[in-house]
Amino acid sequence: MADNKLAAEKIDEALAALDGWARMEGREAIHKSFRFRDFNAAFGFMAKVALYAEKHDHHPEWFNVYNRVDVTLATHSAHGITMRDIEMAQFMNALI
Amino acid sequence: MADNKLAAEKIDEALAALDGWARMEGREAIHKSFRFRDFNAAFGFMAKVALYAEKHDHHPEWFNVYNRVDVTLATHSAHGITMRDIEMAQFMNALI
Repeated sequence: MADNKLAAEKIDEALAALDGWARMEGREAIHKSFRFRDFNAAFGFMAKVALYAEKHDHHPEWFNVYNRVDVTLATHSAHGITMRDIEMAQFMNALI
Repeated sequence: MADNKLAAEKIDEALAALDGWARMEGREAIHKSFRFRDFNAAFGFMAKVALYAEKHDHHPEWFNVYNRVDVTLATHSAHGITMRDIEMAQFMNALI
């Protein structure tokens, strides 16, 4: 099930194939800092992710300043990292 | 000039008329946490602000998680708060 919390080894296996993503310290979540050419490109990325997020009812935590977008993914309902987070991370990586 | 750093009393005067905005501690910037009905409303707000930001070449720092958008405004080139920040804050407040 996409909503089940993943075991640590499953997360490590998934992260090995996800460029730039890593576990967060002190929290069951994954994180990546994206850099773009400018704000236009950064917000364009965010708009694409926002549509994905609504469609899948799964939303990122993110911070943006100019060309930088720092993303944190976790599944609150599962109190951890699920396939929904891995799939969203894959979607984001495929956009760049 | 919109690009000149504002004096402290000018900032306080502007903030008094800006619902929800306050100075940040330890940094020359202003801050507000916005809450919306849901992610759709939060990201709709962000999209409107993004268009304004590009038009005025002045960009926010912001964090979003689901229906919450935490915004920080400062003018890096002026090392402080300018009319550009006040005007952007006014624009944001007028959206809600």
